Formats: sequence, C-alpha cells, structure tokens
Amino acid sequence: MIKVGVVGGTGYTGVELLRLLAQHPHVELAAITSRGEAGMPVADMFPSLRQRVSLRFADPTGAGLEHCDLVYFATPNGVAMEQARALLDQGVRVIDLAADFRLRDVAQWEQWYGMKHAAPDLVAEAVYGLPELHREQIRSARLVANPGCYPTAVQLGLLPLVETAAVDLAHLVADAKSGVSGAGRKAEVHTLFSEASDNFKAYGVAGHRHLPEIQQGLSQAAGREVSLTFVPHLTPMIRGIHATLYARVTTQPDFQALYEKRYANEPFVDVLPPKSHPDTRSVRASNLCRIAVHRPLGGDMLVVLSVIDNLVKGAAGQAVQNMNIMFGFDEHAGLAQIPVLP
Amino acid sequence: MIKVGVVGGTGYTGVELLRLLAQHPHVELAAITSRGEAGMPVADMFPSLRQRVSLRFADPTGAGLEHCDLVYFATPNGVAMEQARALLDQGVRVIDLAADFRLRDVAQWEQWYGMKHAAPDLVAEAVYGLPELHREQIRSARLVANPGCYPTAVQLGLLPLVETAAVDLAHLVADAKSGVSGAGRKAEVHTLFSEASDNFKAYGVAGHRHLPEIQQGLSQAAGREVSLTFVPHLTPMIRGIHATLYARVTTQPDFQALYEKRYANEPFVDVLPPKSHPDTRSVRASNLCRIAVHRPLGGDMLVVLSVIDNLVKGAAGQAVQNMNIMFGFDEHAGLAQIPVLP
Amino acid sequence: MIKVGVVGGTGYTGVELLRLLAQHPHVELAAITSRGEAGMPVADMFPSLRQRVSLRFADPTGAGLEHCDLVYFATPNGVAMEQARALLDQGVRVIDLAADFRLRDVAQWEQWYGMKHAAPDLVAEAVYGLPELHREQIRSARLVANPGCYPTAVQLGLLPLVETAAVDLAHLVADAKSGVSGAGRKAEVHTLFSEASDNFKAYGVAGHRHLPEIQQGLSQAAGREVSLTFVPHLTPMIRGIHATLYARVTTQPDFQALYEKRYANEPFVDVLPPKSHPDTRSVRASNLCRIAVHRPLGGDMLVVLSVIDNLVKGAAGQAVQNMNIMFGFDEHAGLAQIPVLP
Amino acid sequence: MIKVGVVGGTGYTGVELLRLLAQHPHVELAAITSRGEAGMPVADMFPSLRQRVSLRFADPTGAGLEHCDLVYFATPNGVAMEQARALLDQGVRVIDLAADFRLRDVAQWEQWYGMKHAAPDLVAEAVYGLPELHREQIRSARLVANPGCYPTAVQLGLLPLVETAAVDLAHLVADAKSGVSGAGRKAEVHTLFSEASDNFKAYGVAGHRHLPEIQQGLSQAAGREVSLTFVPHLTPMIRGIHATLYARVTTQPDFQALYEKRYANEPFVDVLPPKSHPDTRSVRASNLCRIAVHRPLGGDMLVVLSVIDNLVKGAAGQAVQNMNIMFGFDEHAGLAQIPVLP
Repeated sequence: MIKVGVVGGTGYTGVELLRLLAQHPHVELAAITSRGEAGMPVADMFPSLRQRVSLRFADPTGAGLEHCDLVYFATPNGVAMEQARALLDQGVRVIDLAADFRLRDVAQWEQWYGMKHAAPDLVAEAVYGLPELHREQIRSARLVANPGCYPTAVQLGLLPLVETAAVDLAHLVADAKSGVSGAGRKAEVHTLFSEASDNFKAYGVAGHRHLPEIQQGLSQAAGREVSLTFVPHLTPMIRGIHATLYARVTTQPDFQALYEKRYANEPFVDVLPPKSHPDTRSVRASNLCRIAVHRPLGGDMLVVLSVIDNLVKGAAGQAVQNMNIMFGFDEHAGLAQIPVLP
Repeated sequence: MIKVGVVGGTGYTGVELLRLLAQHPHVELAAITSRGEAGMPVADMFPSLRQRVSLRFADPTGAGLEHCDLVYFATPNGVAMEQARALLDQGVRVIDLAADFRLRDVAQWEQWYGMKHAAPDLVAEAVYGLPELHREQIRSARLVANPGCYPTAVQLGLLPLVETAAVDLAHLVADAKSGVSGAGRKAEVHTLFSEASDNFKAYGVAGHRHLPEIQQGLSQAAGREVSLTFVPHLTPMIRGIHATLYARVTTQPDFQALYEKRYANEPFVDVLPPKSHPDTRSVRASNLCRIAVHRPLGGDMLVVLSVIDNLVKGAAGQAVQNMNIMFGFDEHAGLAQIPVLP
Repeated sequence: MIKVGVVGGTGYTGVELLRLLAQHPHVELAAITSRGEAGMPVADMFPSLRQRVSLRFADPTGAGLEHCDLVYFATPNGVAMEQARALLDQGVRVIDLAADFRLRDVAQWEQWYGMKHAAPDLVAEAVYGLPELHREQIRSARLVANPGCYPTAVQLGLLPLVETAAVDLAHLVADAKSGVSGAGRKAEVHTLFSEASDNFKAYGVAGHRHLPEIQQGLSQAAGREVSLTFVPHLTPMIRGIHATLYARVTTQPDFQALYEKRYANEPFVDVLPPKSHPDTRSVRASNLCRIAVHRPLGGDMLVVLSVIDNLVKGAAGQAVQNMNIMFGFDEHAGLAQIPVLP
Repeated sequence: MIKVGVVGGTGYTGVELLRLLAQHPHVELAAITSRGEAGMPVADMFPSLRQRVSLRFADPTGAGLEHCDLVYFATPNGVAMEQARALLDQGVRVIDLAADFRLRDVAQWEQWYGMKHAAPDLVAEAVYGLPELHREQIRSARLVANPGCYPTAVQLGLLPLVETAAVDLAHLVADAKSGVSGAGRKAEVHTLFSEASDNFKAYGVAGHRHLPEIQQGLSQAAGREVSLTFVPHLTPMIRGIHATLYARVTTQPDFQALYEKRYANEPFVDVLPPKSHPDTRSVRASNLCRIAVHRPLGGDMLVVLSVIDNLVKGAAGQAVQNMNIMFGFDEHAGLAQIPVLP
C-alpha cells in the first residue's frame, strides 16, 4: 500500500482519478486538496463516490501531501510547475495530469500556453508518461508528465508507422473527435448541453496546444521531423476520442502485422482484426486503446482508426498505469474494469 | 468457484450479465447459448468483452448447461417457463431475468403476457428476487424470479411507506422515466436514435405489464390491497430509471428516519440526506438504488425519488446479487464497481 | 407593419424570438439591446441568423425603443419592472417574457423571487398572456405578462378539468419534464453537456417559482382554491416540456369530449385521439400544445399528457401569439412553421 | 400552383419533403404513395403533420401520379429506375432522391449498388441536381438525380479548389461526420438509440457508395481525374453533416476570396469569415451550406469545413430547390426557414 494525494480533485479528471484510486488494491487515498472547496466531503460534490470515498477536500497547506509516496496534480495548467519542486524535494514522486511538463522545448511551451515556465529544470527531468514509448524511464521517474488525451490517441495510432517510416512523414493528417468531457467541468457557454448536444463542430483549426505535443512524440519516435495537420472536433457524447488518421504509403509492409507485432505485449492496446471499425463505447470507462488499420480500395492512403476514453487512457487511467509502473505494481492493478456497453 | 451458464446472451441484459460475471471472483462462466448466433465468439458481437470473455455462443443442446451450478435465463418472456424444469430436475439452480415467474397469479400473468403459462407449479415455487424483501427465501431458492426494472425502482421507493401504512394506499402514483436500453436490443423503429433522441414521451398509459408486479409486491408488503397509477416514460438516455412517487400522507412519522432505518443494513440502497435530488448517473453501471424523501411545502403529499441503473439493479446486477445470496457469497462480490460519472 | 424592439436578446428566448420575428409578415425589427454586447452583430453571436437579421446589439440608451409600437423584454427577472413604465408612458406596448408581472399577489411574488417589486401598480394592470384564458383582455392590453413554460403546459393540460370541477381540486399532481434549454444560456455547471446528458433528475421539489403561477391560473379558472403538487425534472433534450398530470375523478363526464370541445377553436391546442402518447418532438420548433387524455384501466385517476416546445409556446411563440392578438393580426401570422421531425 | 406527387413517403426524406412541400406557396400536394401503408393518414405516422397534411398514403396504382406536374421518388435505390419512364412518357417531370440516376457510368453503378440497372438510357438523360454546378441543365430537365447527402457537403466544400486546380487533386481527403438520420428510418440494431448514442465510430472505410459520386462530380468540375479518400462517420445527433476536407496546396491564390467569389450568387451557400468554425446546428432544418476555409499555421495543407442538414440541403431541401429551378419559381420559395437554434 502506498499513500497517495491528489491536488485539485474537482474536475472530471479528478473525479475519474478518485473512481480508479478508490478501487485500487495498493493505494491508500490520503488527501485531496481544493482551495475553493476545503471542508466539503468529496462525495457531496460527486454522489457517485458516496460510501466509497470518505475524504473531505482539504486546503493545500496542512493537507500533509509531503507524507505521501505519490501526488497527482489534476489542476489547471501552470499549477504543478509551481508546486512540484517542494514535494519532489521531500521525496514525494509526482504525476502531473496537466500540460506543465509535456513539452521539452520550454520556449515552445511558453508560446502555446501563454505563460512563463516556472521550472524549466524540471521539464528537463520529467518523463513523458506514454508507457508504450517510455516504460523504462517511467519506472524510475520522480516526475511524470501524463500525456494529453488527443496526443495519446493520435500517437498510439501512428507510432508503428512513424517508427518504421513506412509513410510520408511530412503530410500526416489527424482528424480527431472528442466527447465534451474533454473540455472539463468549467462553466462555459459553448459546452452547455443546449449548445453541444445535437451538434457537431471543429474547433482550434488554426492551431491547438496538443499539436506540438503530438509532433514532439512522433518526431522522437521517427528519429526525424514529423509534420502533422491536426483538427479537433467536438462531438455530442460525454466520453471518448476517435482519431481518424491519414498517411500516404511510401513502402509496402503488411500494415496489419506491423501493428499487431508492435503492440503484442502492450496490456492496454488492442489491435482489431482487419476491416474493423472500433466505436468509442467499446472502451468506455476503461483504460484501453483499440486500433484498426485500413487501406481503402488498395490505394496509397492508409487510414488508421484509434479510440480511447479521454478520461481514462487519455487522462486518469494512464496516470494510474504510470503509477503502477513507477511502484512496481502489476500494470493492470486497479485498471481491470470491463468497458461499460451499452 | 461455481459454474454458471447463461441462456440467451445477445441482448442488453445478457451483455451486462457477462460484464459482471466476467469480473466476479467466484464464478466460472461455463456456457452462453444463443440459437441464432451459435458459433460466434461473444466478443465479436460485443467488442467491449474482447480479451475478457473468450466463450462462443453455443447451441442450447450440447452446451452442457446441466453441469452448471446456476443458469441465468436472459431470454424473452416465455422461454424460461419451458426450459427451467429440466435444469431444476438435474439439480441446477435457476434465475430468470424475464417475467415468467414474477406474478404469483397465473391467470393474471396469462392475461398481461398474452400466452398460456407452461409451468404453473414452478410459479408457486419461485421466489421473487427482491433481496430487500425476500432475502431469506432467496438463500435456499431453487428458482428465482428476478424483478423487473420499474418494479425494483418503484417498490424500493415505496416499501417503507406501505409497510407502515403511513400513506393513502389506494391512490399511489408512480411516474417513472426509463432510459432507452430498457426496451432491449431489438431492431424497432420507435427506439431508433432518430426517433428517441432529443425527445420525451409517455407510453403504455392504458396499462403496463409492470403494474401488476408492482401491486403484487406492495400489497404483500402492506398486508392489504394497494392501488397504484403507474405511467412509464421513455427518456433520451441509455441507462437509468428515475421513479417519482407521490403518496398522500395519513400519519405523521419522521419520514426521513423511517427510510434510513428501513434500509440501514441494505448494502445496495442508499437513502440520501433531506433535500437531495438523486440523478440517474449517480448509479450508472452500479447496483445501487438511491432514494430521497421530500414533503413539498410541508403539505400532505409526500414525494419520493428513487433511481437505479435499469440494467444493473434493475436486471443483471440484481441477478448477481441474488446469486451471491443463494450461494453464500459476500453480497457485494462482483458488484463493487463505483458508478461511472460523468 | 409595426416596429418592434427587443430588450435583451442574448439568451435562448431572445434568439427564438428573433427567429420568429424575422419571419413575421407584419413586423419590422427595429432594435435589439444588450448592454454587454453593444455593437456586436446579432448574427455573430447566432450564426443561424446570418443573412436574415442584420441588426447589431445596441446599448439600451439611444436604441430608440420609444419609437417602437411594441417592445419585448427577454431579460432576467427584475429588469422589465424597472423599465416598462417609461415605455408605456410613451405609448409603447410591452410584453414581458420574464416573471415580473405574472403573479398578481405582489407579496407572494417578492417571496418567491427574492426581491422588492418596483412597480406594483403595473402588476395590477398587466394581463396574463395565456390566450386560451385571456384572449379578450390581451387584445387591448398595454402590458402583457407572458406565461412561464411549465405553467403553459400544465394549465393547458388541466384547464378543462378545473373549469368544470370534474376532479378533486385539492390533490392535483403535475409531474413535468423539461429540456435543458429551459434553464437558459447561462454558463453553469449543472447544465453542461457532460452533466446533463445521459442523465435524468428532479429539481426544486421543495418548491419552484412556477408553482404559485400555476395555482393562481387554475384557481382563477376554477373560481376557487386549487392545490397542486408540482415536480419539475431535467431531461436530456434541448427543447420540449412533457407534463404528466394526475387528477382524481369526482364526476363522470366524457373527458375526451370535454377537452375537444374546450379547445375546438383554439388555433394552437391540438387534442389528440384517445390512447395517444404525444411526444415532445411532435411540437418541436412550433407554437403547438398537444394533449392526450387517459383513464388507465377505467379507474378513478385521470392522466393527462400535455406537450409544448418550451421556447415557442412556452416563451417566444406565445409572445408572438400575444402580439398578433394585441395588434389584430391573424393569430397564425409568423407562427405557421410545421414542427421539425425528426 | 403545380400538382406534386411523392412516391414513398414513410422515411425521413419523405417526411422532410412533406414538411417543406406543405409550406410551399406554389405546390399542391396531390398524392403520396406507400404500398405498405395504403389508407393510413400521413399524419397518423407523423403527428408533426397533423392539421397540415390531410392526405392518406395511397396505393401506387390509382394514386393518379400521372396527372401530376412533378413526382418525387423518396424510395429505396432501385425503385425509380423501374417506374420513372412511365411517368416521363406521360409528361410528368421526375426528381429521384435515391441513387438510381446519380452515376453516369452504369457499370460502375451496378458494381456499387449490387443490382442490374433497369434504365440505362434514362441515366444518360438525367441531370445531376446540384444547382451550384448544373443550374442551367436543371431548368429544362425532365429527370433530375438529386445528389446524396455526403456528396453535397463534400462537393460544395471542394468545388472552388478543383475548378481552379489550386491543390493536389490526387490526394484529397474528406473526413465526413453524419447525424444518424442519414441511415434512414429502417429498424436496424446499429442505429438504435442505445447503440448510437454517446458513441462515435467510422464505417464503410473500405469503400462507400458516395465515393464514386463525389469523384464523378469533382472530376467533371476539374476537367480531369480527381482522387479522394472518403471516410464517413456516425455521430450521435439526429441531423447534420460536417465534412472536414484536406487538400495540399499547389498554387497560392487568396483562398478566402476564391470561395467568396465562387459562391457570391448562390442563394444557399454561405462562405463564413476567416477563422470560423461552422457548427451543424447553424443550418439545422434549413437548406443552407456553410463553409469555412482554413490554412493552419500557414502550412501547405488547406482545411475546409462544410456543413449541411443532411435531410434538407442533403436531400429534401435540395429536391425542392431543384423543383423551383425546373418550374421557374423563386429559388427560395418554400425554403426560407431560418435554422432552428438551439
């Protein structure tokens, strides 16, 4: 059993993390902090946790986070970079579910996130927590940058192609569709039910913060610059990301075999049989990523379909998977839930 | 470990049962039958079960159901009454998730279900599987009639009132709203997405099969005739039942205390604090029933709100709970999932 | 052609009013005011109005509302009571879509709405704009209080019963379900897509502001005190109200005939044939109210189903209907759109 | 006034056509046929049409279609090719909303649609009813092939590019998302609410019938072969198509100006200002197509967003537009409804 703390647990990533941690066999949930809601029982805000999580939100000072083995930051961007160092200095390991440590290029980060970075040295130390790419470094990491939701779905869908340079790496296209929970639990007009329901739209076409994160990961995997056009869309469902990926074939491997081999030992990546169309509900509330590979009409364009639950493999579940790796637990621990369908 | 079989696993009740059983610590899933889909891997129909359920649908003959300790019928009405006896005769215990054994009055059953009953003697033997009412009889039952979804939500919401005769038992009103999965996985026009989405309607106002089942249970609990007006509605969500119950107060107990005491030892009934409004998602994918008690403006009308997940406490979960009781397992076994929210 | 102004056009009631007015044959849309959005083209906020509404939001001062024949207030409660008098004094007629002039009892209004009323004398003058009850007074009214959405659906569903005292008037029950647009276009957590979708809940069971409005209307129609239990629910659809109404029969008229006769000459009330179940989409985007009358199993409880589009007959459409009556236009003018189904 | 008949009016295209025709100033709805529902009042199947469409479904023989000026076929593929000739021979003009006359290459049609074509000579005569491409030929056409929903959204989004050969025509990508009504009103499992709601998936990646139709139109507009990768997706909304189109820039015109100029005189195509993200609801229940043009980060990939209502501009509305052109009516006649938002 390890002692775990959560900083900022009032958003969707936070409540999902609590759902998973409360069912984890090796975790004692020691503290949850929220400046705004200090004193409120967590289960009053999220009745789904009644009788399962008895903690109250605590003020960060005095919450005893320094006595934890691990602290998760489920906070807005810019918080973890201010607070992580003090914890690390006291021997606490940290997983940040926000974006503070995802981009290795600090200048690039500052440009996309519109603020000065408070801890560039920690950026250098942080490990990007995509287990399918960095499992070994994660094991010993003090500080893990948990990937974004879109970057998880897109990178897992493209890795086998870029690692083998089997396609034109200069003109990749990622057309991604996300459920509305990806926008968080903030009160905003554009994510109201009456705005987002029975409706579909693209957003951020001019440029989205997840683009540099995706390009960084793919370029690293390819060993050279990868260029991607990334268009996110808002789709009227709560959970789920569906990435439709387009790549122009330049070599002729057996693509189905390439994917199956690449992910043969990955506990949470499921390569579907040829001709499959994974739907997002097939991974709902689970840590799985399901992938299908198509080559329409035998042409030179490969189409890869990649689905995840944005709150699980795209956020809280991946964070738990990273914890399992960091502490030597079975990688499935606390993540064995079967997807909820229908 | 007990060996369990499922007859008819291609509907929503079936797939939900498989989800729960595949995660149950004391169950070996031995056989799933489907005449129409014999030979097909279950996970081909329900990709959510990939890597978790390796069984194929089997033809009923030769499936070896007679070697099971327990067989579930997740079949249309009228199937279990034909097939249960043979299994019982071989020592297999049976839980029917359909309606064949729910009504003790066979004539009444035949009228509401429009067919001749094939096994009236088994009706007499069957135990109505609402643990909150019949836990002791369930323990030793050979044959359990698993309650309907509406009857579960409505009875749990009204039991404390009818057991104490605290209200006018001749004019109860149950206004119930169900998610669309309650209508099953049959291809029908009225449950198409384009018909049922962004829409709300009542149905069966003239009379619904769940009415006699509710009246039977409440009358038995009251020790006298209870009369109820029951109006079901279709609401555009997948899972969930919300019953809004109206009863005219005739005595003046502390209603909140009455409910809390009645359900103090029930593992799956959660009486909320005063002034609560349970939402259906607070029980999504879990076996819980959450209840709130209101007395608007201190008047003489009591309003009780009762929510369940129709596929879990309203069907498959309650069936697993009944199995746990029948076989002496911890009643929570396989049913400890925290609700999925959002 | 009359000149019409709209105060506060940035909410759902406002944009719906603009949709209807822009298609109205006798209306010139002269001004729309919004303090917060002054200068912005209306169509920039609501792209559905591109090429159809060329106005910009104007600051209230200088918008020239005093030159209009009619001004609509589509503002939060408490605004019209401050501003209506100045317009009335200049000969402008006013329709308030908020609640400022709905309750005749000012003390009761102040209690439910939590503020001091600024214009009690105007309350006395205002006509309650339910055409089916007050068409004659509306014709000559200077100031019309447009009814609330729930009160419209519930009153139209119960009027024939209370006018004839055919039922127990002391124990009426109105179980009402509303689409989420009824909560308005404010940024709030509980109406976010990820909160309200795939979910169902009651709210305001302890007491809702529409209750005194309903009781006032029904009591007036009955000629004596009517008592009602009213429970509103939030249902995951954008538009629509479905009221399920329960009344205990005390006399034995032909209820179907009673309803058909009562509404025979009403242009926007459609009494369905016996055994019907109106769905909300059958009135989507139209000014219709459809009603069905049931007497389940021939018992003593009558069940009436009443559906409207909360933004049309429950708000903007009824306001246009009132305008048509006030200015002597054909009552259908601008309101002839066929419901959008599916 | 012209006399209009509809063959097959029981699907979504049919009811939408009736909604539009019933509000059209120059149309007398003379007959609606349905072999299966002959004798049933149309409004019994579609209550939204009560009091507005008094016709009954009629058996095709004896419906008097031959006395109409125009007959619409809102039938499954393969019906119009059998029945159109008889009507044409009697001087009736015909618009087919199915696919029978869309592909000029009969062999290709037979391959994609899996049946023998019954009237190849009519294919040769038929005019493809995309007014933005073929307005002049439509004016005098006897037989119009109304375009498919995806082909309308995709062609309108790409026409300015292919006509000017401003992009690489060999590697276009169309990632299209459709509401569920596009699948029709057939009872099928995969379009049930409980399957399609809160879910997202691609389908037909291996090849979809709309691909050859799109390639035919674009190739004709380009004056040479155009190659396209087309992936359709099912999104949980009722109406709407959102096409996200990717094209690699080969020349450097002002793309925004190119689109604005191309569609300057088109009554139903609205080119949005730069940086816009059209949502599907901004065209809901209207005949509009809204388009936005993006060039992310100034790179060499152009992204075009094109939205329509699949039942209006993608089916019934475009059919009415074609009728208006054929009979010399104002092109807006009967199509002036403002989109329904929210």
